Amino acid sequence: MNNDLDKVLAEIDAGLDDSVARLCDLIRIPSVSTDPAHAEDCQRAAKWLADELSGLGFDASVRPTERHPMVVGHDRSGTGPHVLFYGHYDVQPADPLELWNSDPFEPTLVKQPDGDTHIVARGASDDKGQLLTFVEACRAWKKVTGKLPIQVSMLFEGEEEISSPSLAPFLEKTADELVADTILVCDTDMWNRDIPAITTMLRGLVGEELEITAGDRDLHSGMFGNAARNALQVMTDVLASVRAPDGSVTLDGFYDGVRELPAEVADQWARLPFDQAGFLSDIGLSVPAGEEGRTVLEQVWARPSYEIHGVIGGFTGEGFKTVIPAKASAKVSFRLVEGQDPEQVRAAFRAHVQSRLPEDCSVRFTPHGGSPATVMPLDSVMLRQALGALADEWGGEAAVAGTGGSIPILGEFKRRLGMDALLVGFARFDNRVHSPNEKYDLSSYHKGIRSWARILAAFAQPA
Amino acid sequence: MNNDLDKVLAEIDAGLDDSVARLCDLIRIPSVSTDPAHAEDCQRAAKWLADELSGLGFDASVRPTERHPMVVGHDRSGTGPHVLFYGHYDVQPADPLELWNSDPFEPTLVKQPDGDTHIVARGASDDKGQLLTFVEACRAWKKVTGKLPIQVSMLFEGEEEISSPSLAPFLEKTADELVADTILVCDTDMWNRDIPAITTMLRGLVGEELEITAGDRDLHSGMFGNAARNALQVMTDVLASVRAPDGSVTLDGFYDGVRELPAEVADQWARLPFDQAGFLSDIGLSVPAGEEGRTVLEQVWARPSYEIHGVIGGFTGEGFKTVIPAKASAKVSFRLVEGQDPEQVRAAFRAHVQSRLPEDCSVRFTPHGGSPATVMPLDSVMLRQALGALADEWGGEAAVAGTGGSIPILGEFKRRLGMDALLVGFARFDNRVHSPNEKYDLSSYHKGIRSWARILAAFAQPA
Repeated sequence: MNNDLDKVLAEIDAGLDDSVARLCDLIRIPSVSTDPAHAEDCQRAAKWLADELSGLGFDASVRPTERHPMVVGHDRSGTGPHVLFYGHYDVQPADPLELWNSDPFEPTLVKQPDGDTHIVARGASDDKGQLLTFVEACRAWKKVTGKLPIQVSMLFEGEEEISSPSLAPFLEKTADELVADTILVCDTDMWNRDIPAITTMLRGLVGEELEITAGDRDLHSGMFGNAARNALQVMTDVLASVRAPDGSVTLDGFYDGVRELPAEVADQWARLPFDQAGFLSDIGLSVPAGEEGRTVLEQVWARPSYEIHGVIGGFTGEGFKTVIPAKASAKVSFRLVEGQDPEQVRAAFRAHVQSRLPEDCSVRFTPHGGSPATVMPLDSVMLRQALGALADEWGGEAAVAGTGGSIPILGEFKRRLGMDALLVGFARFDNRVHSPNEKYDLSSYHKGIRSWARILAAFAQPA
Repeated sequence: MNNDLDKVLAEIDAGLDDSVARLCDLIRIPSVSTDPAHAEDCQRAAKWLADELSGLGFDASVRPTERHPMVVGHDRSGTGPHVLFYGHYDVQPADPLELWNSDPFEPTLVKQPDGDTHIVARGASDDKGQLLTFVEACRAWKKVTGKLPIQVSMLFEGEEEISSPSLAPFLEKTADELVADTILVCDTDMWNRDIPAITTMLRGLVGEELEITAGDRDLHSGMFGNAARNALQVMTDVLASVRAPDGSVTLDGFYDGVRELPAEVADQWARLPFDQAGFLSDIGLSVPAGEEGRTVLEQVWARPSYEIHGVIGGFTGEGFKTVIPAKASAKVSFRLVEGQDPEQVRAAFRAHVQSRLPEDCSVRFTPHGGSPATVMPLDSVMLRQALGALADEWGGEAAVAGTGGSIPILGEFKRRLGMDALLVGFARFDNRVHSPNEKYDLSSYHKGIRSWARILAAFAQPA
């Protein structure tokens, strides 16, 4: 088996250029899930993945949903444990386009001073590049040994960036087909460029859109200014009131059930290298914006947060217009940690807004997904096997980390199938995920593929 | 003279249809001053007015400026006092277009249940309709008597809606030509549909645009949420902090020098009919939004105010994007009363914003005009003559009113030529000025023309 593994790793090294070419093909499909204009592209991306899996000998197919399709594939050529690998082929919108140095959907390879190469494109990291690290590892095993070390199924969705509306109903229908010993996910970060990480804590998410209406039309501030309610003034008052000066969230009961970080995790975080100042300076900042007295790692991984993602209202064109706007809209979200219930937080937010609304104003809410936080057990066999495989590839202790991001599917799988997930990701903090000039390091892609090849071998070993 | 006046009033009644046709011609020129795409239309509107005045025997011409031209005309056929009539031919943008019931620049006559007719179009009231009431009154006098009762000059500008940037330099150049005994302006409201008003108090205006930057790019709230500063959160905090819960403005020294309403004005306001509830319900509101303990009339006419005219930042498209925006922009203004200095208020606002900005954020300010409030002396002869003429036309006491709007030119004229202005307007509160479906009542136009004909006759009488 180790002999096979060496051949597989050699095959991965020899085939890297082809692996990159396949990633570029997938990136060129602009599968932006939030934009109806790209629905057809989501279909194309799903078919592309199903064809790839079929080519590897998987029993694979595109499964339609109400919106963007799922891709499911199975390979039972191996024995022993059965894993379900999850990834998503949809990407965030590329705007603002003018801030990109190259076409977001034409992958550009940019050589770096340190010898590494950046694959620059929307989705290069999140999640097309990460997703293919696992597919390419399976390809190498199949090519070298004709089979996989264990039983492997894959599930790819096209709605992760829009809070996975079709996932729950799909799992209802296909639970028996998808149940496995564990879920593998590749949508997370490394600790740093040298230390890989297995993520065991993920924050949940509650998204809300609100439109506030004051009065029945826009007004002239000369004639009505002061006496007439201004929808933007109500909106800014409401949005600002959700966050206290110390960075905490003011919603009733928001922190009920929120616990402190487990000691063993806190200890490893203290032990592992993390440059708090560098983390902020890399994004042009210097002052942690979250709760006072919390480290940056706690703020982004272990504490709930409130963010305003978009606000629009009134006259925003060139020049100046002394208008009192009748309407204002905003999109906000809350990142949740273990112990917080998404629907309770949503209800608390709506109650907070209603309580601050003047009686002659109204508000319309539109929910945008809700998922609880997910926490993995630290004592599982597969976790230990995966940590060992990563140590072999990277030559050092792998981190047991948290992540600020949400992967709603995990909550669904836990709830519906009782499955825990193993989150092994090779992205880096500076990948500009969801931002202009998103990139994935060639070394992340290459060693990511090699790491999965090793993990598959490790899972084939007796516990 | 009274015999002449009767003939002039009869001529006005007989020629009303032609007067309306001329107003429609002017409205059809979309002279939107804030939009560079309409610069040519502003030129056309100026030429149209100069041609009209020349047709009446005025020595009239279009005078170029750095942006939109002025129109100046003189008629010295009369004797006695010399008045300078001021109006503006530029209009506000028509957006949001989808809220108009008809083409904003194709005047539509809509018959009302009460027998009146609404002339619906952008600029129908502000200020094309009001401006022409004076021109048409002069036309009638000329047609009936071949001359005007007094000496008349006119000045029309095309930058009133963008804070009159060219006015000061133009007045510098043409002071000798424009100086007169008083300025007449028709850009204000009636007290109600039966009681005309002469406006003696106008608020000033300070406009500011600000762009806040936090971080060097948009970020993913999953990875950075909580620790990374959110430009929209800083913006909403800053904008909300300028207004106290009681509706007052929190800027340092904002109310220094602001005095209470003169007793005689307060008494007339209390005596004249004003339906506070109706004023608000007409615009779909019920709660006065300004300083607690102040009447609606005080709030809109006699107290300074703060308004947010536009805010934009982050992801505002369809769907949802968990982005932490690096930039947010807003346009705000302050309406000023007597005793407040525009540049002091601007400086106080900028200092307030700077003081609340996290040290790793930055802000860029763009000024949008600044003008002090204007207050007219209540003891002038021409004011009494005009009040008498209005009483004759409308059959009742005319109101001595205030207005929340700004007419920056008045401050310039007072400062540069020492001239006070007489503000006689025939607009109504419900004209939807600056809003979709702006309208001017045919009766405002008709009786407005008649009122000016009477005022010109009154000015010809010995003091």
